Amino acid sequence: QWMMLDWKPRRPDMLTDPFGLGKIVQDGLVFSQNFSIRSYEVGADRTASIETLMNHLQETALNHVKGAGLLGDGFGATPEMCKKNLIWVVTKMHVVVDRYPAWGDVVQVNSWVAASGKNGMRRDWIVHDCKTGDILTRASSVWVMMNKETRRLSKIPDEVRVEIGPYFVDSPPVLDEDSRKLPKLNESTADYICTGLTPKRSDLDVNLHVNNVKYVGWIVESAPPPILESHELSSLTLEYRRECGRDSVLRSLTNVSGGGGGLVDSGYVECEHMLRLEDGPEILKARTEWRPKYANILGSLGQLSELSVAESA
Amino acid sequence: QWMMLDWKPRRPDMLTDPFGLGKIVQDGLVFSQNFSIRSYEVGADRTASIETLMNHLQETALNHVKGAGLLGDGFGATPEMCKKNLIWVVTKMHVVVDRYPAWGDVVQVNSWVAASGKNGMRRDWIVHDCKTGDILTRASSVWVMMNKETRRLSKIPDEVRVEIGPYFVDSPPVLDEDSRKLPKLNESTADYICTGLTPKRSDLDVNLHVNNVKYVGWIVESAPPPILESHELSSLTLEYRRECGRDSVLRSLTNVSGGGGGLVDSGYVECEHMLRLEDGPEILKARTEWRPKYANILGSLGQLSELSVAESA
Repeated sequence: QWMMLDWKPRRPDMLTDPFGLGKIVQDGLVFSQNFSIRSYEVGADRTASIETLMNHLQETALNHVKGAGLLGDGFGATPEMCKKNLIWVVTKMHVVVDRYPAWGDVVQVNSWVAASGKNGMRRDWIVHDCKTGDILTRASSVWVMMNKETRRLSKIPDEVRVEIGPYFVDSPPVLDEDSRKLPKLNESTADYICTGLTPKRSDLDVNLHVNNVKYVGWIVESAPPPILESHELSSLTLEYRRECGRDSVLRSLTNVSGGGGGLVDSGYVECEHMLRLEDGPEILKARTEWRPKYANILGSLGQLSELSVAESA
Repeated sequence: QWMMLDWKPRRPDMLTDPFGLGKIVQDGLVFSQNFSIRSYEVGADRTASIETLMNHLQETALNHVKGAGLLGDGFGATPEMCKKNLIWVVTKMHVVVDRYPAWGDVVQVNSWVAASGKNGMRRDWIVHDCKTGDILTRASSVWVMMNKETRRLSKIPDEVRVEIGPYFVDSPPVLDEDSRKLPKLNESTADYICTGLTPKRSDLDVNLHVNNVKYVGWIVESAPPPILESHELSSLTLEYRRECGRDSVLRSLTNVSGGGGGLVDSGYVECEHMLRLEDGPEILKARTEWRPKYANILGSLGQLSELSVAESA
C-alpha cells in the first residue's frame, strides 16, 4: 500500500490550488483535494456525517476526471462515454471510518483508479487529517458502465479504455474486500422495517436517478435508535443492485446481527440491511459496523470547559 | 449601496486563502469567501439548490465571526455570549436569487453586519459569479440573542456590544424590507397542506434545534408540484417565530396567491406559507416568488450540443 507511505502535510502545495478544486500528484496517478469541514456538514455533535464524507469522495473522483482532462458533458463520463451515451454506476462501496473530522478541520482526500476484472474500474480513496496526518477514512469502490437510454450495463468500449487505461494504478485495494456474503433479508427475518421512504426532489443527481450517497442516509436513518444514540458508524459495505428514480417508494429492512447482546451496552454492533422497492425488487444490500461513540467523551469535556469559562466570568 | 460598487474579480487574493476559509477585506468590515459549487450541491438540472446557497451564506457568516477573532465555543457566538449562555437566532431572512450557479462555478460571498433596532443585528450578503462578476444573490437577515438554557430572547449585553459593535457598518440593507404583512394561514384558507413532516437526525445543528436552512427545504418540497416543475424560486421572505427540535412534527400550509391564473403557464407565481407544529404553535411564515425556469432553455441547448458531438463521431 505505497499510497499511504509518502503522505505528508503539504501546505505550500495548496497555494497552487487557489479554487480548492484539487490537483494531480504522484506521477499523475493520484488526485489530491482538500476540504474544510463546513458548519452545514456537521451535526449536533460537531462532527461530519458519513454522507458528508461520501460526498467528499464523490467530489474528488469527479475532479480527478476533470483534472485529467477527461470530463465530457456527463457526471464523470469521459468524452467517448458521452458519445456512446454511457454513464458510470457504482456496484460496490466499502468505507472504513477511523475518526470523523470536526467542524473547521481540513481533510485531504487522495484518490486513484485501477482495473477491476474485465469490465469494471476500482476507485480507492484515503482521507487524512491535514493537521495531524492521521488517516481518517479509507474507501474502495467498483464502477461499471450503463447505457443512459436503455439503463442496461455495458462493457468498457475500446475507445473508453484508451482514455482511462493510462490512469490505472497497479496496486492492491486500500481495503481488503469484505468477502462475507450479504444476506437477502425479508419481512419475516428482519428485526426492523421502515416503510414508505421516498426520494426528495433534491436527491436526484445529474444522471437522473437517486445518487448513491442518499441510500446511505436512508440506511442510517432507519438503524435502531438505541444504536444511533450510543454508537457511531465505523464501517459500511454496500452492494448496489438497481437504480431508483423520483417516483420510487422504498422500504428499509435491518437485522442486528452482531455485538453479542444488548444494543445499548458499550460493545460493538453489526447490522445487515436491505433497501427494496415497496413492490419487490431489491435496490441494495449493506452491512454496517458500529462502535461506541467517542463523541460521548468529547461531549463531557466540552461541558467541563464551558463550566470553567462560566466560573471564571 | 457602496458594497456593490467596488467589486472586481480578485484571483490573486485567493492565493492568500489557501484553505478556502475566507478573509476580511475592505477596511476590516466586509468578509469575503469563495465557494466552488460541488457535484453534491446541485440537482438534476446541474444548478445549486436554494438550500446550498443559504448554507454558503451561513458558512460565510460563521467564518466572518471566526476571522474577526470573535468565535467563542458556540455556533457564531462570541466569547462574551458563551460566558452568558447566549446563542444567535434568526428572526427574519430575505433572499433574492437572480441566477442559480451551476456545478463547477465559483462564487464569491461578501458579508457584513449592521445594527438592527436596539437589540438586533442585521447581516447582509451579496453573492457574485467569480468569472463574470454578475450578482447572483442578495440577502438580508435579522438576528437576536437567545439564552441557551431558558430558550428566551435576550437583550444584547454591553459586554457583547463592545465585541461586535466595531464591526457594524453604517449602510442601508442590501434588500429593501418586504413590508407586506405575511398572513397567518389556517386549514380552511390554505390551498395545499402537507402533514407529518419530521426532522431528520442530521437536520439538527450545534445549537440543538432544527437549523434555519432546513425549514426552506420543507417549504420548497411542499410547494405545488406544477410550480416546482416549471418554475424556479426567485425570492424568499422568512419570519421565524419559534424553534423546533428533534421530536417536533410539523405541517406545511401553502397558498398560491399571485401569478394571476393557471400555475403551469409561463407567468410569475407568488406563494404564502406557514409551517406549524401539528399541535398548534407556528414555527414560521414565509412568502416565495417563482419565475419560469430558465433551465428549460439551457436544457434544450445541452441536448443540442450532445447531438452535434454524436454526429461528429
